[in-house]
Amino acid sequence: MNGAESLVGTLAAGGIRVCFTNPGTSEMHIVGALDKSSEIRCVLALFEGVVTAAADAYARMTEIPASTLLHLGPGLANGVANLHNASRARVPMVNIVGQHALTHLKYDAPLTSDIEAIARPYSKWLRTSRNASSLGRDTADAIVAARTAPGQIATLIAPADAAWGDGGTVVSVPAALRPPVPASDKIERAAKMLKSGTKTGLLIAGNALYGKGLKLAGQIATATNAELLALYNFARIERGAGTLPVTRIPYVPDQAAELLKDFRQLILVGADAPVAYFAHPTRNAVLTPADCEIHALASPSEDYIGALEALASEFPLSGKEMVTEKAERPTLPAGPITLPGLANAIAALLPDGAIVADESMTSGRAMFSVARGAAPHDWLACTGGSIGIALPQAVGAAVACPDRKVLCLTADGSGMYTLQALWTMAREGLNVTTVVFANREYSVLKREFASFGLGAPGARALDMFEIGRPDLDWAHLAKGLGVPSRKVTNLDEFGKALRAGFETEGPTLVEVVL
Amino acid sequence: MNGAESLVGTLAAGGIRVCFTNPGTSEMHIVGALDKSSEIRCVLALFEGVVTAAADAYARMTEIPASTLLHLGPGLANGVANLHNASRARVPMVNIVGQHALTHLKYDAPLTSDIEAIARPYSKWLRTSRNASSLGRDTADAIVAARTAPGQIATLIAPADAAWGDGGTVVSVPAALRPPVPASDKIERAAKMLKSGTKTGLLIAGNALYGKGLKLAGQIATATNAELLALYNFARIERGAGTLPVTRIPYVPDQAAELLKDFRQLILVGADAPVAYFAHPTRNAVLTPADCEIHALASPSEDYIGALEALASEFPLSGKEMVTEKAERPTLPAGPITLPGLANAIAALLPDGAIVADESMTSGRAMFSVARGAAPHDWLACTGGSIGIALPQAVGAAVACPDRKVLCLTADGSGMYTLQALWTMAREGLNVTTVVFANREYSVLKREFASFGLGAPGARALDMFEIGRPDLDWAHLAKGLGVPSRKVTNLDEFGKALRAGFETEGPTLVEVVL
Repeated sequence: MNGAESLVGTLAAGGIRVCFTNPGTSEMHIVGALDKSSEIRCVLALFEGVVTAAADAYARMTEIPASTLLHLGPGLANGVANLHNASRARVPMVNIVGQHALTHLKYDAPLTSDIEAIARPYSKWLRTSRNASSLGRDTADAIVAARTAPGQIATLIAPADAAWGDGGTVVSVPAALRPPVPASDKIERAAKMLKSGTKTGLLIAGNALYGKGLKLAGQIATATNAELLALYNFARIERGAGTLPVTRIPYVPDQAAELLKDFRQLILVGADAPVAYFAHPTRNAVLTPADCEIHALASPSEDYIGALEALASEFPLSGKEMVTEKAERPTLPAGPITLPGLANAIAALLPDGAIVADESMTSGRAMFSVARGAAPHDWLACTGGSIGIALPQAVGAAVACPDRKVLCLTADGSGMYTLQALWTMAREGLNVTTVVFANREYSVLKREFASFGLGAPGARALDMFEIGRPDLDWAHLAKGLGVPSRKVTNLDEFGKALRAGFETEGPTLVEVVL
Repeated sequence: MNGAESLVGTLAAGGIRVCFTNPGTSEMHIVGALDKSSEIRCVLALFEGVVTAAADAYARMTEIPASTLLHLGPGLANGVANLHNASRARVPMVNIVGQHALTHLKYDAPLTSDIEAIARPYSKWLRTSRNASSLGRDTADAIVAARTAPGQIATLIAPADAAWGDGGTVVSVPAALRPPVPASDKIERAAKMLKSGTKTGLLIAGNALYGKGLKLAGQIATATNAELLALYNFARIERGAGTLPVTRIPYVPDQAAELLKDFRQLILVGADAPVAYFAHPTRNAVLTPADCEIHALASPSEDYIGALEALASEFPLSGKEMVTEKAERPTLPAGPITLPGLANAIAALLPDGAIVADESMTSGRAMFSVARGAAPHDWLACTGGSIGIALPQAVGAAVACPDRKVLCLTADGSGMYTLQALWTMAREGLNVTTVVFANREYSVLKREFASFGLGAPGARALDMFEIGRPDLDWAHLAKGLGVPSRKVTNLDEFGKALRAGFETEGPTLVEVVL
């Protein structure tokens, strides 16, 4: 067997079932091996920023790494912005990046670049295979690294001569290890904080935001009156009617500081302490009060669920009823388009088990909280602030969960970064309803310009903030990419289009002109 | 004056007239300074891969660096694939990348990344400014570095607190230095080779491919019967009726080796020795015969024109007439779409002084040679093999040369990488006629798969090679981005659409379904 076959065989042996890809010449033997494998589903994207964000979302929904297959330095380079988001999401991912035959590097051919240097800022594990006989072992090591808690980006660079060379062997991949439970003194300290009666937040992340982890956190919160909090840039939250209420810390620093001002204790479970996205000449970057005690119960590489289990054992419910979100679907609104109206329509119509990929930016800041009582759903956020995540995130979520409906909420500005994702939705027949909020500006920048005291923007600055002149026409763009679309001009039409989207097999797009 | 104002003032003092950009919050003070400057034209792009390729093409046409303004690590990351192409084009470019306030880095906020590490593989000069008072000096140093022969990518990372801080000063930028002429023994050796009577190629690059440099090379070629050659991935060639004929080394290695097989001497002027783009298990990577003597007359950092002047002084024309391309416009073809027909139509209609940005891939391989006798024009190629260059290249060329018509030839697969460029063409009213060759596949990959002896691709491989299912509709995509478009189904329509495009003010797009 050649090296490429051992690579693909080892991916399959390691439980990897999907490869998001845009391959090139140097990857042809790996494509040949994938062609013969029935165990790995290949999903083509027309741009690598789609590949990496799709792999990220797939992992958020399954806890299993997807693989990517990328063409040399440039193919990887096109995907790195969304690898930034994925690294902040702390997901497992196995990137396979093609490389020239090692014998070819000395010629410095046009596509030669320092692939390791390009990958390093985003990769917790990074290796270039030396030959065919090492490719299986290297792939197994990459999978093990990717699965290391809480999930890591592993990048394996596969030279063409290693792929086409003989002597490959499929290497078995050990089952993922459960990460270590935090030391008992960290759990004791958290317990003591929770018993103090002081206002305490439990700031949770990763798998503490859904499933068993969230239930344990909810038990602790119910028993102790602590409040469950999540960072604005969480990876995934399970929410909606019947789930445990988690308060999201707002994006706008003043609002975040207002929310946090009464907390005197914050217990972190896999989360970073809350800070402002950006510095400001006169405002605090730290969002918690100066006298707030912050304790990391579990670091990102520790077992969040184990930590919460240990902590919850100190706080039995003792008959207390778990506080959960009440079912509260807004009535379907009508009339002219307004942001609250759009939020209500979404909360009213969200299907049971939906997955929401949210990059609605300034247009959507109300939507998260309005949907708290909607049908149970998962919400995916932009973890690293690199825009252009939601459309490909919807691809990855839909591939991961074919039986669930995906709602993609995207601003027009951020959507333009990776609109190629729409084509993959069409190609794969994914059940994604995309809503584009077309305010035709980088609204957030207008607000920030003002917040820095820079005065009213002049014509040149406005040209950098406004993305009209000409207006983007998303209905046309979607059609060009094979996705049925419509533009709506009032809430009645929006509701109808959204409902139709959820009832349609395959993707649809709704453009809302604000 | 704050640091941002000193940065912008120094850019202007250094002769920089254009800033291709997509800024973010951390760049707001720089936006504020640009807003007040009338010397620098800001050109917004909806994706940073457009920004960097536009800056590249601008420099190819003007020899003056453009600046870019990019938002933190992710904004830079979105632009690096086309920085790979720019670094291979050896153009000057000044990237300004925003950074958090240095005081903010310790918080590891969501958008924090190692910007220097992201920039390093693409930057010959790289610096993070420490404060407002150093920002002017750092900007001046960046411009000097960018202008260093043959042209370099300089990346200045500008922290927000350096931008908003007081104490900035505009720093004057010294005039660009002419690079050193190669040592006399290198010139003597080249002269001796040319006098030997052996079949010799003069493989030229950079500014030896147009203007004075090309005339000097042509004089030498005429006097000595040497043949002028260019690499497949040249940056820019001046060509068409009346220009000096330059033979482009083909992309396909067998064809390249066939072209080069009789050459026994190759003199390099700023060019790399010709090698295959990719390794192959059984074929030579070196494209020249084993006994071909290769001599670098001028290295990339030396003065190509000075070298050619010195060499030409040994080879006076002595009344010999310069060999130039004969005017030879094909007659406008009619009938069904064929690749030769398309090439003939383009050569027939190309306006005088046109600039061709070419990423037509397998569809366009004949077009370059067919256009040799067309009206005089410049041709821009993809220098680094990173696809997604032609559309933004057309933006940069049109901004650089507002009085010339730009023809963008793009394959559908490569065009999808940076289609956002169409919007910038519309926004800026650029005179770009784009032709999309829609063969609905990565045709090059099908050929490479076969060339590796991998047999007939199966269904999974075909799904990675074919980009139909669904078909992209470029006419819709262009409309969505504000560019008038039409789809043509025969050569008569193609000719009409192309002519209309050249006669239209502002951009148009023609989709040719192959």
